[in-house]
Amino acid sequence: MIERIAILGTGLLGTSVGLALRAAGFCGGIAGWNRSPEGARLALAAGAIDSIAADPLQAARGSQVVLLAVPIYATLDFMEKLSGVLGSDHLVTDVGSTKRLIAEAAGRLFNTLERAAFLPGHPMAGKERGGAALGDANLFRGAVWLFTDDPAAQRSEHAAELVKDWREWVVAMGSKTIDLDPVRHDELVAWVSHLPQFVATALSALLEEEVGDAPELKHVGGRALREMTRLGASPYSMWRDIAYTNTEAVQAVLLALEQRLAHLRENLRTPELRDEFEQANRFRRE
Amino acid sequence: MIERIAILGTGLLGTSVGLALRAAGFCGGIAGWNRSPEGARLALAAGAIDSIAADPLQAARGSQVVLLAVPIYATLDFMEKLSGVLGSDHLVTDVGSTKRLIAEAAGRLFNTLERAAFLPGHPMAGKERGGAALGDANLFRGAVWLFTDDPAAQRSEHAAELVKDWREWVVAMGSKTIDLDPVRHDELVAWVSHLPQFVATALSALLEEEVGDAPELKHVGGRALREMTRLGASPYSMWRDIAYTNTEAVQAVLLALEQRLAHLRENLRTPELRDEFEQANRFRRE
Repeated sequence: MIERIAILGTGLLGTSVGLALRAAGFCGGIAGWNRSPEGARLALAAGAIDSIAADPLQAARGSQVVLLAVPIYATLDFMEKLSGVLGSDHLVTDVGSTKRLIAEAAGRLFNTLERAAFLPGHPMAGKERGGAALGDANLFRGAVWLFTDDPAAQRSEHAAELVKDWREWVVAMGSKTIDLDPVRHDELVAWVSHLPQFVATALSALLEEEVGDAPELKHVGGRALREMTRLGASPYSMWRDIAYTNTEAVQAVLLALEQRLAHLRENLRTPELRDEFEQANRFRRE
Repeated sequence: MIERIAILGTGLLGTSVGLALRAAGFCGGIAGWNRSPEGARLALAAGAIDSIAADPLQAARGSQVVLLAVPIYATLDFMEKLSGVLGSDHLVTDVGSTKRLIAEAAGRLFNTLERAAFLPGHPMAGKERGGAALGDANLFRGAVWLFTDDPAAQRSEHAAELVKDWREWVVAMGSKTIDLDPVRHDELVAWVSHLPQFVATALSALLEEEVGDAPELKHVGGRALREMTRLGASPYSMWRDIAYTNTEAVQAVLLALEQRLAHLRENLRTPELRDEFEQANRFRRE
């Protein structure tokens, strides 16, 4: 049913969605737009899109499904603009890492019988570096793709079909979908995604200060250290909007980990250390 | 020159050394002893050792090189016992994860012209689980093998040759050797090895408490979360002696990370966050 998709933002995620749709057999048109023309050219050369759009709003109007694959504040900007130019024959969806603000905007700007539908989405997939050049048709294979749809959304029959179709394409790209409330989503990803990132950043920054001037000693840590600091390569530009739009939840999980580390530090020579290891073992066992 | 090696402790490291020596062309005898007979049988079946010793001290006496591959306190126990039965035609070396106490014992019990030589060693290689069954001839390939030898050690010409030979076998097993002072060693591994482990343990234990009852949500974090918690599977038995024998250094690095996380938490919406990401990026770039 979907004949034309517009991907606004052909970075790592946008390009990977284009490639994954093609790999899953999507034969319709895929127009792409990117803030920097170079990213759009790379996506076109890789076959993730079949045309470069000069005007993102025009490309959106000419498609049934619009995928916003830009940072969160840019997503919110696009939502404002798109709500004015799209109608009930359009579905807009996104891949933003926090969902509370986006779901609020969706309720305010979309999801009435006259307006376009908006389905907030969040594929739990990525790499520690971004960019179209790293686009990967298998990025979403085995991943979880979260949705935080509004049960009160009102949609035309056509828009409801588009939502159903998009969910099917997400499954066809290899992902398992899970539906969550947007506030619960932001709390959950603070634990399972944002906390691991900020820990890796703090650990890497600290180690750079302590052993960064002795490159031979940085390699002493081996695989374990490489793994625990791989996410330290993630750029600020990918995480700034997350820190701004999920501040309270991230603060809460960071404080919880600080307290946990202090507890461990105070119990290096008590039976509590055994309990802590056993609790950690359980997390990995299940 | 080395014709016979005794490996006391055929867990993951002891078994892997036997396999790696064979892969590197060592043709001499390798006797193995293990506290649980099952571990020795597995090492024998894998070809890591060619005989099982009933008595570890006797096996040590019958070898030129004795490798202690047991936990740290067990290593210290063996050092006491071996110093009484070995002479200047023997070299004892180990793979213990902390070196201050072992180097102290080596100075007290070994390394005179009449006594056996002791070369404290620490291969920076391992897996999050132990046991002979996981033994791997390539475990030390590309790894760093640290030594904390005593510059004041006195050795017979024969013992000095054994030390030189053992270092060559370590290189032949694929490792790069680095020499460090034992106190500096323990401080360094607190940063690059113990801190990553204890962070992974604390993070895994915390997540088990928060999302452990919702298995489908544990998978939401994807590869990043799996990596950051892999070491959470490490058993207490592998880390107890490290926590006990490097307590102060580990406490210092844990406190430093707690402070770093607090700094990050207080600056999620300030330019400091950018600085922290850039500092972390530098650690991964070099």
